[in-house]
Amino acid sequence: MTSELRINGERLMASLYELGAIGALPQGGVCRLALSDEDREGRDWAVARMQALGLNVTVDAIGNTVGVYHGLTNMPPVMMGSHIDTLATGGLYDGNYCVLSGLEVIATLKDAGMRLRRPVAVAFFTNEEGSRFQPDMMGSLVFQGGLALETALATRGIDGVTVGDALRQIGYDGPASVGHNRVDSYFELHIEQGPVLDEEGLAIGVVEGVQGISWTEFHLQGVSNHAGTTPMRLRHDAGYVTARIGVFARQLAQELGGDQVATVGHLVFTPNLVNVIPDTVTLTVDLRNTDAEALRLAEQAAYEEGITVSRNMLARFEPTPFALEVVELVAAQARLRGLPSRRMPSGAGHDAQIMAAMCPAGMIFVPSVAGLSHNINEFTAPQDLIAGVNVLLGAVVQRADRA
Amino acid sequence: MTSELRINGERLMASLYELGAIGALPQGGVCRLALSDEDREGRDWAVARMQALGLNVTVDAIGNTVGVYHGLTNMPPVMMGSHIDTLATGGLYDGNYCVLSGLEVIATLKDAGMRLRRPVAVAFFTNEEGSRFQPDMMGSLVFQGGLALETALATRGIDGVTVGDALRQIGYDGPASVGHNRVDSYFELHIEQGPVLDEEGLAIGVVEGVQGISWTEFHLQGVSNHAGTTPMRLRHDAGYVTARIGVFARQLAQELGGDQVATVGHLVFTPNLVNVIPDTVTLTVDLRNTDAEALRLAEQAAYEEGITVSRNMLARFEPTPFALEVVELVAAQARLRGLPSRRMPSGAGHDAQIMAAMCPAGMIFVPSVAGLSHNINEFTAPQDLIAGVNVLLGAVVQRADRA
Repeated sequence: MTSELRINGERLMASLYELGAIGALPQGGVCRLALSDEDREGRDWAVARMQALGLNVTVDAIGNTVGVYHGLTNMPPVMMGSHIDTLATGGLYDGNYCVLSGLEVIATLKDAGMRLRRPVAVAFFTNEEGSRFQPDMMGSLVFQGGLALETALATRGIDGVTVGDALRQIGYDGPASVGHNRVDSYFELHIEQGPVLDEEGLAIGVVEGVQGISWTEFHLQGVSNHAGTTPMRLRHDAGYVTARIGVFARQLAQELGGDQVATVGHLVFTPNLVNVIPDTVTLTVDLRNTDAEALRLAEQAAYEEGITVSRNMLARFEPTPFALEVVELVAAQARLRGLPSRRMPSGAGHDAQIMAAMCPAGMIFVPSVAGLSHNINEFTAPQDLIAGVNVLLGAVVQRADRA
Repeated sequence: MTSELRINGERLMASLYELGAIGALPQGGVCRLALSDEDREGRDWAVARMQALGLNVTVDAIGNTVGVYHGLTNMPPVMMGSHIDTLATGGLYDGNYCVLSGLEVIATLKDAGMRLRRPVAVAFFTNEEGSRFQPDMMGSLVFQGGLALETALATRGIDGVTVGDALRQIGYDGPASVGHNRVDSYFELHIEQGPVLDEEGLAIGVVEGVQGISWTEFHLQGVSNHAGTTPMRLRHDAGYVTARIGVFARQLAQELGGDQVATVGHLVFTPNLVNVIPDTVTLTVDLRNTDAEALRLAEQAAYEEGITVSRNMLARFEPTPFALEVVELVAAQARLRGLPSRRMPSGAGHDAQIMAAMCPAGMIFVPSVAGLSHNINEFTAPQDLIAGVNVLLGAVVQRADRA
């Protein structure tokens, strides 16, 4: 039966454009920074949609908002979740697509007059993006118990306002307690934010887990000297060591193969003059899916050039594998609906990796045209968006109805 | 006889400190930007010294100032020259040392009651450093005929003032015409501004020529994308190509060997974020003594990564070999005085390379401690300074007295 059930694609698209109009930017894209007035407007809109569907809506002390479509039993709900906060120059789809898909899944169930064995919930978590308040994925972290509520509320944003004050200002310091939730399982449907599905012409990414992330900042200290008068053998050139690290990072990614990626994204030379050997360089290496010790070469190259190197771990997350039962359920639904798919990791962080610590969790990806992400030009074709929601629908129905 | 003649070291050092007190900086070093009030004070001091020695002083239309100690004939003079303008944070020795050495050489001849067959001149050229007005070596270029006077006078400085106005303001828009000078030969005594003599414990550098300089700015245009979600095979990473250029520049210098140097001194990443593949990088490659085409690799690396590269030649000077007769004269004088020396190129630009186009020219280097240069901590030991002037004295006497 579940393969016959289909969502209303027009209603889905209309809701995307409606929510996307709140905080819309003149050039396209949207700005609804976490806990801003625009975020409040977006939240109010989403809550009104939940209420119109007859859901039981709760807001917790960190502003996470959950709407529950009751089931035939009172067992813990199958949850669909993500976020509706955006970057200052965000796209229409990141986060929002999943929350709207959750509403659409429930609307489809309601239209069909279907109640499932377990409740089905749709949630949006506070401050997934981390653009205004650090860390990102804050709401799901508090929800799951990985971050103390008090710590989160006391966090000061880039504008100096605390999370607690911002929540009160927009009226989303809710009464529901955090840290005592029970969830049967968690599904997050998201645009890929990478080019793989688009490149390979596939409709669905069956996400097997979130890659481990290691961000290391290197600080190289050499000796500044005249570029014309200093022989090569007497140089301590921090720029040269930087170049070796850049080349090595690429080699490392190629040798490890698979989903390994390596990026030198941030780099600052000092004094940064054409005819002066740089004495100080700060650079970052972003590695996903790997052993951070693989960057031992930085020390070796620095030693050979007679410069000192210090490193600072900016961030490190272990890889998060998703629950096999959820991954297989998604894969089966894509097959059932004849949608070409592939297994893949998520290179970006998502609330699902936080939720994976408290219940079986998984993600479904749909293509991002040209892999554009965190960009006002983010785009996924309507038929791909609709196909993704149908897979979500099928998976949630199966999961919620199981014995 | 010339090996017996010796300068007065104390008088030399006293003059260095006296001139160095004009525009002295609180932390050491000196600031006498070209044609500033401090430059005028320094010029006035030097002109007074020339007049006290009974020299015939002329100031030309670009402010170049020449003092001539007459000879037994009216043949063109043997000239010792350099500059007394400094960087905003200049050292005590750069340029000034040669001008003061020229005065000391002439004072020594005068003390000994010696007139030589040819006149002996000491000159300081306007705006060698190029810190306030571009190009550097401006005064000698006009003197030699390589730059039109009108063009030079119309040049606007970083403060918006033209060279012509600045000359008038400090009273150094002299009456002597430019472009019709005859000079027998040109000697420039200078601190090395590099570490080689200091490192090797040598007193004298016999400069064989000024290295060719090629400054190339590369503009690399790739594609910005998420560092986590973009597989290596789909990247167009301008940062990676930058790293390859940096590694290649070092390899090139090592393979060519000799005096070849290569420096990536300036580098700017865009957008310069930890988790974003850089799409745009601007970098410079400073090569001395080489074929600029050797950087073909930039194009190859860019092609392989699928990014575009454009290059902009910021500066290019062909290597300037010095006259063999002058080089050998300097080498012989160092030998005669028992001073350990080596042949070497100049990695930095000097007025001597401009003068080499109009007469036999050469340079003598003395050690710079730790190679420090363009730095308030520039330092050369007094005995090294004095030894250098004695070599200059011997060479000038030989040259001026020849048949």
